[in-house]
Amino acid sequence: MSQFWSPLVHTLTPYVPGEQPKVNNLIKLNTNENPYPPSPKVLAEIKAQTGEQLKRYPDPNSDVLKQTIACYHQLNNNQVFVGNGSDEVLAHAFQALLKHDKPLLFPDITYSFYPVYCGLYQIEYESIPLTDAFEINVQDYHQNSGGIIFPNPNAPTGRLLALEAIETLLQQHPTKVVLVDEAYIDFGGDFNHQSTVTLIKKYPNLLVVQTLSKSRSLAGIRVGFALGHPDLIEALECVKNSFNSYPLDRLAIYGAKAAFEDEAYFQDTCQKIIQTRQKLTKTLKTLGFNIIPSSANFVFVSHSNHPAEQLAQALREQAIIVRYFNKPRINQYLRITIGTDAENTQLCQILQQIITH
Amino acid sequence: MSQFWSPLVHTLTPYVPGEQPKVNNLIKLNTNENPYPPSPKVLAEIKAQTGEQLKRYPDPNSDVLKQTIACYHQLNNNQVFVGNGSDEVLAHAFQALLKHDKPLLFPDITYSFYPVYCGLYQIEYESIPLTDAFEINVQDYHQNSGGIIFPNPNAPTGRLLALEAIETLLQQHPTKVVLVDEAYIDFGGDFNHQSTVTLIKKYPNLLVVQTLSKSRSLAGIRVGFALGHPDLIEALECVKNSFNSYPLDRLAIYGAKAAFEDEAYFQDTCQKIIQTRQKLTKTLKTLGFNIIPSSANFVFVSHSNHPAEQLAQALREQAIIVRYFNKPRINQYLRITIGTDAENTQLCQILQQIITH
Repeated sequence: MSQFWSPLVHTLTPYVPGEQPKVNNLIKLNTNENPYPPSPKVLAEIKAQTGEQLKRYPDPNSDVLKQTIACYHQLNNNQVFVGNGSDEVLAHAFQALLKHDKPLLFPDITYSFYPVYCGLYQIEYESIPLTDAFEINVQDYHQNSGGIIFPNPNAPTGRLLALEAIETLLQQHPTKVVLVDEAYIDFGGDFNHQSTVTLIKKYPNLLVVQTLSKSRSLAGIRVGFALGHPDLIEALECVKNSFNSYPLDRLAIYGAKAAFEDEAYFQDTCQKIIQTRQKLTKTLKTLGFNIIPSSANFVFVSHSNHPAEQLAQALREQAIIVRYFNKPRINQYLRITIGTDAENTQLCQILQQIITH
Repeated sequence: MSQFWSPLVHTLTPYVPGEQPKVNNLIKLNTNENPYPPSPKVLAEIKAQTGEQLKRYPDPNSDVLKQTIACYHQLNNNQVFVGNGSDEVLAHAFQALLKHDKPLLFPDITYSFYPVYCGLYQIEYESIPLTDAFEINVQDYHQNSGGIIFPNPNAPTGRLLALEAIETLLQQHPTKVVLVDEAYIDFGGDFNHQSTVTLIKKYPNLLVVQTLSKSRSLAGIRVGFALGHPDLIEALECVKNSFNSYPLDRLAIYGAKAAFEDEAYFQDTCQKIIQTRQKLTKTLKTLGFNIIPSSANFVFVSHSNHPAEQLAQALREQAIIVRYFNKPRINQYLRITIGTDAENTQLCQILQQIITH
């Protein structure tokens, strides 16, 4: 507290990200990073761009990247917005599109940054409980609102909402923005044709947000993007250009572009993660875990005989870190990121020791 | 205009950055970039960090960079805030520290992003005219306010305000934040002991913002920082952590750190720019230009016989781009970034042709 702070600051409760430990030799399954490195072509391109040209400002509009993403998703350039990680894209979307007279709606169990953005931009919101099976029931959103946002697959549950259900939402709320946060869509959802990107041409109220941090192994260079009707993109550009002209640095722009150009590598790593998730799910079942069906690069699990917090602690003592949220309804669950097959084998062995101890 | 926009968006007038042309072979003197490349040690460090670890999120607190900057400026880590370019740092400062009941004060001729931030965060402001010689007169700021912000040296004038005058401001406004935007301080101001960093220990209401985009040749990787009392830094962290956990990517963190570790290169390039500025100033005088005394990596000049807009156009036809602002009081001035000696020689030759034509 300080006399110098703007009044808003006294009211904020910042987001707390998962730990980024500074020691090595941990199996890090706590922040949903990709266990595989970025494509070698991405690393080569970043190195190629690391030269004298870094003295210059990057293109403020990141046009080469927008063009690449537009082409990849069969959209026009003016249907693409890029930002410094999808968290920045989401922040701009909250400010530019989700602040209206009526409350914004999102699930009670969801990405915990959403209420933080509401605090930052003083947006009224109402959280809608997931069903007992941690599913989104779109009929629960059938009310007057200032907009709707949810991740699909949801976080931290991993559950995927079917495309038809999302279409119902879009039709029920034609004058409000429905923001679908597809951070994890590439781990099964898109493969099964459940990405909302295909609905953009049909629904001007749909904004889709994706990231390169998960499925493209690029959490370290910070690139996220939004796709939607040009009117929605224009609002995002307007806020972005009132905040920071150059949010993406040159290396991020070109590294991200190269990631979209190596489709084979992308498909291969996504498939490996899906297969490891299937193996992990099978093993966890044999160990007596309850597992929410996941379409993400993590599983959300509980065990009736072992309190989640104790399990997290026991794993930590064995140099494995997972995410535990001490929050209502989910304080008996662990969110475990899918690692490599080798990491997964070690995780399963250690969990077996803990469970059967 | 769209029904989907938050009401705020309808009111915004975004900042328009200087052009980043996509053609080569231009002498680019329009956005105050450094004409010299980044230190070879910086480029080597970025390449060394371009590996598997990019799959991981960067340290959300950028601790290694904060530590380096704190050490460089003889401060503690909790007196340092880092952001994705100094524009992002400024944006957070406007929101976290400069929004109060009374209007924020800044010069009428100054960095044109300031009123844009006021629009974004709905901060009332009052612009205080510079003197006829384009100087800040601190007595003009002696009124009740919500805070004060100005660049030192000022942009686009290049004029440096003396440290004693800034101390007067800090003493006259002990309960309000005085933000000194030192984007250009390394081109003479700091060398002459006029940086306000030395005042931080004495004035808890002082926030100093600097950037690596100009004097450290790193506009392409987007790093800026703020220095001040831990209470001020805490407010910035609170807003940053409510907006984006990871604003600096791994390559920016380590590249910036390496830049602070190559003091010899930094000093050498700054001195070269100062010397070129002196040469340019001398030549422009012989060509009949009026030159505002500059402590920055640009000069702000006018010519009584040649309208500034026509001069900019004539230079452009000769493949040299400079910045022209069509704004009251300064629409007869050009802002010319200091280039290399070779670029400077070419600029002077072409200007001579234009002037004597």
